[in-house]
Amino acid sequence: MNNLISFIEKNKEKHLEELFEFLRIPSISSVPDNALHVRECALWLLENIKNSGIEDCRIFETEGHPIVYGQWLGAGDSAPTVLIYGHYDVQPVDPIELWKTKPFEPSIRNGKIYARGSSDDKGQVFTHIKAIESHLSTFGRLPINIKLLIEGEEECGSNHLEDFIKDNKELLRCDTVLVSDTEWFAEGLPSICYSLRGISYIEVFVTGPNRDLHSGTFGGAVDNPIFVLANMIAKLKDEYGRIQIPGFYDDVLELTIEEREGFKKLPFSEKEYCDDLEVDGVNGEFGYTTLERTWARPSLDINGFNGGYIGEGAKTVLPSTASAKISMRLVPHQNYYDISEKITKYLMSIAPPTVKVKVNTLHGGNPVLVPRDSCGVKAAMLALESAFGTKPVFMREGGSIPIVSTFLSELESPTVLMGLGLPSDNIHSPNESFAIDNFYGGIKSSAIFFDEYSKICKTD
Amino acid sequence: MNNLISFIEKNKEKHLEELFEFLRIPSISSVPDNALHVRECALWLLENIKNSGIEDCRIFETEGHPIVYGQWLGAGDSAPTVLIYGHYDVQPVDPIELWKTKPFEPSIRNGKIYARGSSDDKGQVFTHIKAIESHLSTFGRLPINIKLLIEGEEECGSNHLEDFIKDNKELLRCDTVLVSDTEWFAEGLPSICYSLRGISYIEVFVTGPNRDLHSGTFGGAVDNPIFVLANMIAKLKDEYGRIQIPGFYDDVLELTIEEREGFKKLPFSEKEYCDDLEVDGVNGEFGYTTLERTWARPSLDINGFNGGYIGEGAKTVLPSTASAKISMRLVPHQNYYDISEKITKYLMSIAPPTVKVKVNTLHGGNPVLVPRDSCGVKAAMLALESAFGTKPVFMREGGSIPIVSTFLSELESPTVLMGLGLPSDNIHSPNESFAIDNFYGGIKSSAIFFDEYSKICKTD
Repeated sequence: MNNLISFIEKNKEKHLEELFEFLRIPSISSVPDNALHVRECALWLLENIKNSGIEDCRIFETEGHPIVYGQWLGAGDSAPTVLIYGHYDVQPVDPIELWKTKPFEPSIRNGKIYARGSSDDKGQVFTHIKAIESHLSTFGRLPINIKLLIEGEEECGSNHLEDFIKDNKELLRCDTVLVSDTEWFAEGLPSICYSLRGISYIEVFVTGPNRDLHSGTFGGAVDNPIFVLANMIAKLKDEYGRIQIPGFYDDVLELTIEEREGFKKLPFSEKEYCDDLEVDGVNGEFGYTTLERTWARPSLDINGFNGGYIGEGAKTVLPSTASAKISMRLVPHQNYYDISEKITKYLMSIAPPTVKVKVNTLHGGNPVLVPRDSCGVKAAMLALESAFGTKPVFMREGGSIPIVSTFLSELESPTVLMGLGLPSDNIHSPNESFAIDNFYGGIKSSAIFFDEYSKICKTD
Repeated sequence: MNNLISFIEKNKEKHLEELFEFLRIPSISSVPDNALHVRECALWLLENIKNSGIEDCRIFETEGHPIVYGQWLGAGDSAPTVLIYGHYDVQPVDPIELWKTKPFEPSIRNGKIYARGSSDDKGQVFTHIKAIESHLSTFGRLPINIKLLIEGEEECGSNHLEDFIKDNKELLRCDTVLVSDTEWFAEGLPSICYSLRGISYIEVFVTGPNRDLHSGTFGGAVDNPIFVLANMIAKLKDEYGRIQIPGFYDDVLELTIEEREGFKKLPFSEKEYCDDLEVDGVNGEFGYTTLERTWARPSLDINGFNGGYIGEGAKTVLPSTASAKISMRLVPHQNYYDISEKITKYLMSIAPPTVKVKVNTLHGGNPVLVPRDSCGVKAAMLALESAFGTKPVFMREGGSIPIVSTFLSELESPTVLMGLGLPSDNIHSPNESFAIDNFYGGIKSSAIFFDEYSKICKTD
């Protein structure tokens, strides 16, 4: 074990340099024009996995961005198998002008690696690859069988991974799925996440007149699509923050008293939360705390609104169209197909007859609740504690990793969410970062996890 | 008189070619980067005015775009003076993809000149310059004194013209202001407009958190600026189309019974109106007809809304900011300073404490009501009838020419709105056009107007 840790220590710089190479590739997956960069990133990753000692690796093409797969099965059938899932694609970078340093030119400031994807998810998934390399270089083997499944479409809905999993159940068969794509509750407080929110993401288009009109000539007699859409959006929630879509809360699993107690024990300061965001207060569903609202209650956000003239100066136009991107975060046991249908029906029902409304479902994923008592979770608790010197806490997360629910349903494998991010990482925002200590510590905790897992989790 | 008309007939092609040159210059005034083209247009116009026989002409610089001025005072002090106002700047062209031919490459299809500015206002103001040229070439003189005031900022608020007029009252002194920047009620139905709506144009900015946030991590606990702004916008009107800004209707002059009767007599078909716009119905302030709503009732439109991610695909962002451009059309005797103040106060009052709101006034202008019995109007009626062979009707217009109210207050001169546009001209929209017959006929009616005016309107 000491040899393993000292190998990791010795290779710190090399591992960081490799991560920087990984981060320099602008693998934004939601912009079709950027597909070549995403592929470039997949090929770089494949090469790195091979160089890390996993020769049995390859690219799986999809109708979208490629999937990177690798496996080391040298521990034999008697040993358990862990499937490590992550993604190499990243979020868009706009508003670009708010980045202190360029999003794809990684740089280090006060102990943090700044770059798009540093925390979500390149930095996190890369710790496992380096942990595997450390085992193989030190012992020539791993204590368990490992499978790597790293996709390039997580930030645009994992549109093709679900089918891939359904079509490759045998290839992907495993005892546990290990995912590092979540956050710690706080800096210095390792955390195991046991629930993720799902998502339903739609786009609504409102069309009024067949052309842009002069707001002087027509204003007052013709419905304005922006005004109409704003009105429809205003009808999505009431003044208590309750979402007004009929049947929206039907399948919501209420929090247990134990969970609410647990949340209250966590070191959370609403004042610090607001100060960090520079807002004068939080606001959300009446009757719930901030942690409950973001972890265990569904939410609805307008992610984008576009209509009329948004350039400099004034244009007196009554626009022909307006559109909005709307996403809802879902909690157990809501289903995203069901919710997407319900919001579509509702939007249609509240649209005035003077406009045409079209709703597109952009993507979705179901919420997840994972067992807290699996042997995988136990191994993760031990690994994090010995790597970071602090006992981990249990938490939920407001974000979504849609595919995790597919692992449960298709592979029937429990998932362990052993995240390494920090709340201050600014994922999906300008100046995304990843703490260097969590990168190095993450390589250790992953390496130790393999060891602990091999002891605790025997195959039956 | 016959010589005058035959000169105009003989020079049709030359005049059209000159108009095309005028239209080719992309004098969009609302985009700061475009200032050089606006100046290029002013210089071209100055040259054309000089070549038309008005040697006493010059550019007046402003802090914005230049003003083109010219005068011919050869009729002497005993003769009356008409000030012709117009503008050489044009609206932006987006959405550019909807133009059948390029906006600044004029082309003729089925009797119409297609180009940005063809109707609003280059084509209309140019008829007067060619009418002056026709008089001077035919008779070596004009029957009245003429002053030309052609600005380059009408489409962005005429920000510097008001001060210019106040500072140059003596230079601009006149008996009547003649403006051709309005529309006929219908093709083949020459119209004199006696009222214009004013405008108050503001932009509102809503800022929530200090950075874009992950909608999964924060969604449900932090107010979303787009949602907040949509809610504020929804509160601007009630379900009867009544604007909810306190005191908004205080100064509104109600329609007279005679006006409402007059409007009803005009050949207006709501079905054709809707069919043209491809909407299933009109909508507006309860209790008023479409003509009343657009001509004599104030209105409120959202001209642009911008917030969050509006690119392709999905981005799960809870944005930091959202903004909207909002304009209100005003009717006599509303005042735009007063209305801009009232909406600003109202928006501030309905904003939740969780966001910061900033309101900028982009521009404004007061509504206008001109006397229907002035000698200028009489001369215009005769000129239009003899040039187009049809007795003109009286109408109002929903659009704004803010500066007309300044002519009344500062120069104490009645304005004559002798427009030449058609409702089908698509001003402010893609594929703007100007009927060739109205261009040629407009040169005649302008030339005849000078003559009639000199007979009817004696200086006292």
